[in-house]
Amino acid sequence: MDLNDFSVSHVEGKSRVGLLKTSRGCVETPVFMPVGTAATVKAMLPETLEAIGAQILLCNTYHLMIRPGEKVVNHLGGLNTFMNWSGPILTDSGGFQVMSLAKLRQLDENGVTFRSHVDGKKFLLTPEASIMIQETLKSTIIMAFDECTPFPVEKKIAEKSMKLSSRWAERSKSSFKGSNGSMLFGIQQGGMFQDLREESACYLNDIGFDGYAIGGLAVGEPQQKMFQVLDYSSDFFPKHKPRYLMGVGKPSDIVGAVLRGIDMFDCVIPTRSGRNGQAFVENGTINLKNAQYQLDKNPIDEACGCYCCSNYSRGYLSHLVRSNEILASLLLTLHNVYFYISLMKKIRELIKRGEFTAFAKKIC
Amino acid sequence: MDLNDFSVSHVEGKSRVGLLKTSRGCVETPVFMPVGTAATVKAMLPETLEAIGAQILLCNTYHLMIRPGEKVVNHLGGLNTFMNWSGPILTDSGGFQVMSLAKLRQLDENGVTFRSHVDGKKFLLTPEASIMIQETLKSTIIMAFDECTPFPVEKKIAEKSMKLSSRWAERSKSSFKGSNGSMLFGIQQGGMFQDLREESACYLNDIGFDGYAIGGLAVGEPQQKMFQVLDYSSDFFPKHKPRYLMGVGKPSDIVGAVLRGIDMFDCVIPTRSGRNGQAFVENGTINLKNAQYQLDKNPIDEACGCYCCSNYSRGYLSHLVRSNEILASLLLTLHNVYFYISLMKKIRELIKRGEFTAFAKKIC
Repeated sequence: MDLNDFSVSHVEGKSRVGLLKTSRGCVETPVFMPVGTAATVKAMLPETLEAIGAQILLCNTYHLMIRPGEKVVNHLGGLNTFMNWSGPILTDSGGFQVMSLAKLRQLDENGVTFRSHVDGKKFLLTPEASIMIQETLKSTIIMAFDECTPFPVEKKIAEKSMKLSSRWAERSKSSFKGSNGSMLFGIQQGGMFQDLREESACYLNDIGFDGYAIGGLAVGEPQQKMFQVLDYSSDFFPKHKPRYLMGVGKPSDIVGAVLRGIDMFDCVIPTRSGRNGQAFVENGTINLKNAQYQLDKNPIDEACGCYCCSNYSRGYLSHLVRSNEILASLLLTLHNVYFYISLMKKIRELIKRGEFTAFAKKIC
Repeated sequence: MDLNDFSVSHVEGKSRVGLLKTSRGCVETPVFMPVGTAATVKAMLPETLEAIGAQILLCNTYHLMIRPGEKVVNHLGGLNTFMNWSGPILTDSGGFQVMSLAKLRQLDENGVTFRSHVDGKKFLLTPEASIMIQETLKSTIIMAFDECTPFPVEKKIAEKSMKLSSRWAERSKSSFKGSNGSMLFGIQQGGMFQDLREESACYLNDIGFDGYAIGGLAVGEPQQKMFQVLDYSSDFFPKHKPRYLMGVGKPSDIVGAVLRGIDMFDCVIPTRSGRNGQAFVENGTINLKNAQYQLDKNPIDEACGCYCCSNYSRGYLSHLVRSNEILASLLLTLHNVYFYISLMKKIRELIKRGEFTAFAKKIC
């Protein structure tokens, strides 16, 4: 098996178990990538992530280019050394955060000019700049620079945006050097329109990427709508390449997306909700701030094998959350990320046994 | 050796190495107790504390009685089970925090009436209440209820305050049950006045305690002044009982106090300064916020064996501090507590070798 290769070992319907070989080690898919925005998965040590089975992390190019700057990260050894994580790291292109976080954005054919939300400093992000920044960060998987089409949007605008992203995908590929043994993924756009999704995929397939992401989803549309798009959009990509659904999602979103052929996911939900006092349990979440947990001697989840559930009561966690203690963020983030990673393990096992479809239909 | 016994194994001048046997295990002194105010040492897991050699923690009665309440802690198994720490825990009496944090305080012979700084709820803290609360928390070492005499203060006021604390010490002893195998420590007051310190110690010795604390220091007086008081105040206590200097201090304060016969310390400095971006190094502290560390590939301290120094550069830590990342608090707190615990280990080794006095004289 070559470096940067992807092989599918088990298939059940559209769902599959695969192995992605990166320059930083192998990733078994379907996989959830914990989000380490500013080169840290908030409130977690990298050793804890490794211990609970995290295989690959995501970092945000936008945040890192404005602070501390990609050249600083490079000077300090690149992302892996910088943040003490030896496994693969996927970086996004920065495009999505520019549109959601930056100030005074101006978009044209060349790229996006914006001011940092941290200190107002002016930046220009183009496909060439995004790829260079990600290579300077020494990312393992680099994302093409795209425009994330908003929702809802008229078809004409979705088409114009998708075609711009296609031209940017070509420019991204042209400027990609792969000098660190890194991979390059393209990003499909096209809003909620099947023909545009197909057209976008054709462009990307012609250019040729190591993997294909589905962008422009998880932007506020209902789950049903997202599943409708996924029903066709992943079919347009070659079977022997990994498919990544960006920014997704809740556990039921992930299960439904795996059912539709997706291999990779990232989302801030487990980490962010942990910092907000929410903990994932089998049928949803519980909020430890609620009065009912103050005297509760039970762990978050009796059946959970994580460090938090093995050692702490809901009553103690409730106290920590109410007291705004940092330990609340540590323990709840750990539990939630463990929950997500365990879900992915379970999904892989079910696909291997041919029992995933039945499981998924009970959930979504 | 009996439970709750203290034995001195090595003496150098007034400095000594001892072993305090508690119902929750042995503590080698001189010892530093990390502060876990609300039943958590902020930003640290108990397993990390254990791994770096913490032997005993301090929790604050004032914080715990107002949130979540001592009965809640008791219902959830007592402090050890509640916070997942199996070693000894010392609780203060609540008196100090009532005077520094609570609202609308009214002090009389009986005790202190106050309103919680969290929700305004009214409480009455008396010697009897303080002891009962600490026993309900299932503390290992319980402190007598005292009034911390402020600084500077006229001798008449210091005397009046010390005599009140003496009467409260007697009431504390009378109401102490020791039902969890716990110990009771008395607290010396008397301001900066030698005769009052002696008188206070006489009262306490007559009552009889398992250990003796020196209170009313580290209240804003210069180090020189504190050392002057320590020069005589610990001599008034029996040699076969542990001596605890409350709320102290900087590394040089601790070294100077061990030189004057102190066995136990607690202070928020290592944890609080860690959360503020400060890291302890051999000759003081460095602030990771400073621009000079942004490109620094070195760890905080080349010679330090802690997890933070083994894995992270000053440049990365600087980035985390500037980005207000929780991981900054985790790593800097860990380093600082490790620094304090290592200092205590070194002090014990130096006393055993008879080299501590020479070491201390270089520092303070």
